Amino acid sequence: MSALLTDYLGECRDLVQIEIRDIVPKDRYGPILYDLMLDYPLRSAKGLRPAICIATCRALGGRLEDVLRSAAVLELYHNAFLIHDDIEDGSLMRRGFPTLHREHGVPIAINVGDAMLALTLRPLLDNMRLLGLGKALRILDAVARMALESAEGQALELDWVRHGRWELRDADYWHLVYKKTCWYTFIAPMMIGGIVNGAPPERLRQLRRLAIYLGVSFQIQDDVLNLTADEGAYGKEIGGDLWEGKHTLILMHTMRSLGAVERAEAERILAIPQAEKSEPGVRWLRGLIDREGSLTYARGVAERAARKADRVLTNATAWLPPSVHRDFLKELVDYVIVRDR
Amino acid sequence: MSALLTDYLGECRDLVQIEIRDIVPKDRYGPILYDLMLDYPLRSAKGLRPAICIATCRALGGRLEDVLRSAAVLELYHNAFLIHDDIEDGSLMRRGFPTLHREHGVPIAINVGDAMLALTLRPLLDNMRLLGLGKALRILDAVARMALESAEGQALELDWVRHGRWELRDADYWHLVYKKTCWYTFIAPMMIGGIVNGAPPERLRQLRRLAIYLGVSFQIQDDVLNLTADEGAYGKEIGGDLWEGKHTLILMHTMRSLGAVERAEAERILAIPQAEKSEPGVRWLRGLIDREGSLTYARGVAERAARKADRVLTNATAWLPPSVHRDFLKELVDYVIVRDR
Repeated sequence: MSALLTDYLGECRDLVQIEIRDIVPKDRYGPILYDLMLDYPLRSAKGLRPAICIATCRALGGRLEDVLRSAAVLELYHNAFLIHDDIEDGSLMRRGFPTLHREHGVPIAINVGDAMLALTLRPLLDNMRLLGLGKALRILDAVARMALESAEGQALELDWVRHGRWELRDADYWHLVYKKTCWYTFIAPMMIGGIVNGAPPERLRQLRRLAIYLGVSFQIQDDVLNLTADEGAYGKEIGGDLWEGKHTLILMHTMRSLGAVERAEAERILAIPQAEKSEPGVRWLRGLIDREGSLTYARGVAERAARKADRVLTNATAWLPPSVHRDFLKELVDYVIVRDR
Repeated sequence: MSALLTDYLGECRDLVQIEIRDIVPKDRYGPILYDLMLDYPLRSAKGLRPAICIATCRALGGRLEDVLRSAAVLELYHNAFLIHDDIEDGSLMRRGFPTLHREHGVPIAINVGDAMLALTLRPLLDNMRLLGLGKALRILDAVARMALESAEGQALELDWVRHGRWELRDADYWHLVYKKTCWYTFIAPMMIGGIVNGAPPERLRQLRRLAIYLGVSFQIQDDVLNLTADEGAYGKEIGGDLWEGKHTLILMHTMRSLGAVERAEAERILAIPQAEKSEPGVRWLRGLIDREGSLTYARGVAERAARKADRVLTNATAWLPPSVHRDFLKELVDYVIVRDR
C-alpha cells in the first residue's frame, strides 16, 4: 500500500473511531452490550468505507466536519453487518481474531448487531441540524437503500448456497456483487460524500459508476485473496469460501469449465455443510481451480473493471480538481487489485 | 376476551396488514426475502402493539390515518424482534407453527429480520409529510429509543442466563421487564399514539406510567401462561421458559424460597443448555414452583400492577373522554391478567 493510502486511511480511521466512541454509550450496559460494539471496529481494519465517504466529500470541496458523523455511521453499519454476516456464514475468524459469535455466543452477537443498527438512527437525524433537512433526508434514504440492497444481496447468496445453484453466468455474479458489496462498501459511501456536498444528480451518477466498477474489482480480489493470501496478513481463514461453498467468480468459472462428471462431484462436495466437509474434498476443488485457470480469469475481470473505474475518475477531472482526496481515490483504484489483504 | 377487545383488535389487525403489505416490496426478491417477512405477521397474532398505538391516538382525539403507518411500523419491528429473539432463545414454536429459523435456517432468518428493520425507516420518514417535521422526528426518536431499550433488556437477560445469575430481587425483574417488554409493547406504542396527536409532556408521562404497569402485569401473565396454558391456544411450547432457564418472576421467587441444597441443584439444572436438559430435571423444577406457591405469588404481583394501571386510566378521564378507544384500553387492563393466551 502506498504511503498516501496508508496515511489517509490511518487519519480517517482515527477520526472515525473518536466519532464511534462518541456515538456508542458508555454506561452500565457497557460490559454486556456497548463494549462489544467496539470490538470489531477496534480490531485493525482498513476503515475503507468511511475513508471513501470522507475522500469523496472533500474531493468535491466539502468540509470534513460535515461528513464525519455520516462516515462513522457507515463504519458502524459495516461492523453490524459483519457480526451478522459472520454468524450467517459460520465464519471463524475476523481481522485476525475469533468472530464475535464464537467469543460471546450467537444470541449475544445477534443482539449486539441489532443494537448497533438502532444506534445509527440518531446521528443520522443529527444531520438535520448540521446539513439541513434536504441533505439529511437524502442521506437517510441512501442508508435505508443500502441496508435493503445488502439484505437482498445476502438473501440471493444464501439462496444460491442453500439450493446449490451453479447454473450461473458472470452477469449473475455482477448482480450479486452490485447488491452485497458495491452498495455498502462503495456506492453509499460515495453517494453520501456527494450528497453532503450538494453534488448534482449527474455527478452522483458518475460517482455511482465509479463505485460499481471499484466494488466489482474489489470483491473479485477479495475472493482471490481468500484462496491465495497469507493467513496472518489476511485475518480470515484461507480457503474459507470453498469450505462455505461461496459463489465466487473464480469458482463459478471453474464449475462452468468442468465436464459433467467432475461437475457433479464438485457440486456434491460444495453442498456438504461446512462442519462436515473433508480436507481432501476441498483440496480437490482447489486443484480444479488452478487447473482451469480460474484465478487468472478472475484477475483479468477484476483488472478490466478497475481500468473502467480509472477511466471514470480520469474523465471526472473537470469537477474533481487536484487534491490529496482525489489522489486517494485514484490510488485506491490501483490498490484494489494489487492488495494482499 | 370480550367482544369489544376481539373486534377492536381484529379491525386494527386488518388495517395494519394492509399497511404492512404496502410497505413490504413485491418483487423478484419476494420468494427469498420479502415473502418471509409476512410469515409471522400473517400468523394469527393479536396485533396488540399497533392496536394500542391506534387506540391511544384515537382516545386522545387523533385521526386513524395519521397513526396507521406508524402503528404498522411497530408491528414490523415487533415481528423482526421475534425472528431474532426466537433464534437467540432457541425457540421451536411461534404462534402455533415452527419458528422462522427452523423453517428456513438461522442465516436466512437473521437476514430477514435485518431487512425488516431496514424497511421501517422510509415509512417513518414519510411521517414528515403526513405529520410535519417535529412529530415525525419525535416518533423516530421514540422508535430509536425503543430499539435500544429492547436490546439492552435482551443483553441483560442473556447475561443472566449465560452466567446463571439468580441472586436477584423483584426490582431486578421490573428493570428487565421495563426494558425488554414495556418499551416495545406498551411504552413506544402509547407514546407514539400520543405524539401523533400532539399530547403535551404531562400526558405522555401519564401514558408512560400506564404502559409500565400494564407491561409488567402483561409479562408476568405471559410467564404464568408459559407454565400453565393450553398448548393449542398458546402457540408456543409449554414450559419452554424452564427449558431455556429464563428469568421469570415465578422462578425467581422459587429460587429465593429454596434451601441451599435444593437451590444449588436447581441452578445446576437451569445452567444445562436447552438441548441437553432432561425431562425429569425440568419436571422437578416445575414441582418446586408449585410447592413454593410461586405462581400464586406472581399472579398477585401482576394483579397489583394491573390495578395501578387501572387507577392511572381512571384518573385520566379528564383528558381521555369516553370513547370506544378508551374502553379498549380499559378492557385491555382487565384482560391482561385473565387472558389464557
